[in-house]
Amino acid sequence: MLPLRKNIAEMARYVPGFQPEGEGWIKLNTNENPYPPSPEVVAAILAELGADGGNLRKYPDAGSREARRVAAELYAVDPSWVIMANGSDELLNNLIRAFAGEGEEVAYVHPSYSYYKTLAEIQGAKVKSFGLTTDFHVADFPEKYSGKIFFLTSPNAPLGCAFENSYIAELAARCSGILVVDEAYVDFADESALELVHIHSNIVVTRTFSKSYSLAGMRLGLAVARPEVIAALDKIRDHYHLDRLALVAATAALQDQRYLQTTVAKIRDTRDWFSAELTNNGYQVTSSHANYVFAVPSDAEGKRVYDALFAKKILVRHFSDPLLRHGLRISIGTPEEMEQTLKALIEIG
Amino acid sequence: MLPLRKNIAEMARYVPGFQPEGEGWIKLNTNENPYPPSPEVVAAILAELGADGGNLRKYPDAGSREARRVAAELYAVDPSWVIMANGSDELLNNLIRAFAGEGEEVAYVHPSYSYYKTLAEIQGAKVKSFGLTTDFHVADFPEKYSGKIFFLTSPNAPLGCAFENSYIAELAARCSGILVVDEAYVDFADESALELVHIHSNIVVTRTFSKSYSLAGMRLGLAVARPEVIAALDKIRDHYHLDRLALVAATAALQDQRYLQTTVAKIRDTRDWFSAELTNNGYQVTSSHANYVFAVPSDAEGKRVYDALFAKKILVRHFSDPLLRHGLRISIGTPEEMEQTLKALIEIG
Repeated sequence: MLPLRKNIAEMARYVPGFQPEGEGWIKLNTNENPYPPSPEVVAAILAELGADGGNLRKYPDAGSREARRVAAELYAVDPSWVIMANGSDELLNNLIRAFAGEGEEVAYVHPSYSYYKTLAEIQGAKVKSFGLTTDFHVADFPEKYSGKIFFLTSPNAPLGCAFENSYIAELAARCSGILVVDEAYVDFADESALELVHIHSNIVVTRTFSKSYSLAGMRLGLAVARPEVIAALDKIRDHYHLDRLALVAATAALQDQRYLQTTVAKIRDTRDWFSAELTNNGYQVTSSHANYVFAVPSDAEGKRVYDALFAKKILVRHFSDPLLRHGLRISIGTPEEMEQTLKALIEIG
Repeated sequence: MLPLRKNIAEMARYVPGFQPEGEGWIKLNTNENPYPPSPEVVAAILAELGADGGNLRKYPDAGSREARRVAAELYAVDPSWVIMANGSDELLNNLIRAFAGEGEEVAYVHPSYSYYKTLAEIQGAKVKSFGLTTDFHVADFPEKYSGKIFFLTSPNAPLGCAFENSYIAELAARCSGILVVDEAYVDFADESALELVHIHSNIVVTRTFSKSYSLAGMRLGLAVARPEVIAALDKIRDHYHLDRLALVAATAALQDQRYLQTTVAKIRDTRDWFSAELTNNGYQVTSSHANYVFAVPSDAEGKRVYDALFAKKILVRHFSDPLLRHGLRISIGTPEEMEQTLKALIEIG
């Protein structure tokens, strides 16, 4: 008998989005960016690698100091307010480890990112979920919420709706624990909760480089929060969590805001065009602040459309969850990919 | 008041080895490899990066399948017996999370890698340490040890001594929990405990790419254990814990065993020469199975010699721990670096 902790033995493993083998797929299922990363990222990796990879024999900077400095400048905070991470997943994990012990409560909105639940189960924490109202507020959120962490994905995945800062501030005031605003998709939205970290000491804003910076393959994220929170996260993370190439990629990506803005603008334009076309063709589309749309066909048979797209080698995301199975989450690719997808959807009917 | 978990608030942060700024240092303080990684590693990273870094926009393989396949072939096990990791530190962390809950006991040998203690404190586990006898066995280890995990660093850091497989097997039989054999330095030794995983179901062997593979800067490690243990670790790790460049680097490094063996042979030769010279010059040197030596000057004033070397821009490691402060841990660099270090030590006297 393997002497596993009970919570680990009993929990299910998180299953990430399906990655198709072979060529010829239009891949719109994991919210990847259709454009390559900034050329400055490639140049920075090549420079760090050098002719013989000699730098790789040496440990990276355990403090990610250069990346933090650049991020802090960008967000107009002191570097002590910033931590870098091996994807924002690492931050979500370590936030739970910092604030919620075994049996303590962690909450999130359902539907959103189901990995919060997995991370809480690994910790042996209790998990609670809150629904969404039809006007996209948290359903039945108590006047005073005493759970240790509340994860709010804004913009929401997979629906794409965003929460207003005034509402996020209200939620922060109602939480006695930490309010994590998971802004994985915020660069595609109109507003960020970043300024709220100065007003509400219990707000942590997390970001990822996987979507807007086209760096899903490099595993990079960051958080902005008060220095006491950052110091706690610094205690918990592996001291050398980020490799040398990831560190220079993060710094270069943050420094090239012009490239980010250009790429994001293209994706927003494509998203808005695609959303309008879907609506014209009988789909119900949630107004999206992210790089995907949640779209419901007129017969509300999401799986039927998913399967028909799959047969045409167009991969989108369908969730079997009762709250989501009527629709599809479709990542925004290039204009060409979205034209083909629209054409396929019209054919499928 | 920040609602931190008590164990996190109270624990000290782990401090990794000092990284000097500026040029001109002989850096022998963090057991880095003085030689660059295999040219195949550089070629694999360049191929994955491509001209425009386009692959980086896509998520990596969440299963590390190619790297696991190659590692499994190398170690003559099924791939279900192998897991890759973001440095072996990630494995040590996740082993505690899999097997030791809050208040449960985790043990290790002192002196060895003090990060085990930090990781146990993050988890809120109880920590126990066992000493070493003068003939390098675990002191006072019980006939039946009921703690959840026992970490055995073999070869030991910072002393360099290795435990024989017959002794490791005996310890495994005495543990009701998991015996982790941390083989970070084993490629510089004569024997590995790898074969024992087939005999003792509670043995987990961990490895790092930071030392023998010259990839400290890429954060790579792996573990070999029974499939049930690997499956538990797969539940706990972040699903995308390894980036695309790290994955191809790992695969290429494992595939170039000839390069590994050449590099390791050079370091062992330098180590044995340096050890003999130190002994000739009045130092007491523990016979080393690793890429460093633990050396004690005749006056047992480790700090005095550390400071004098530091003044000459030669950086070695001194530990203030009462069991270690009489000596120095000196990483093995190139023959030229070790000749200069020897010359400096003779001058210092």
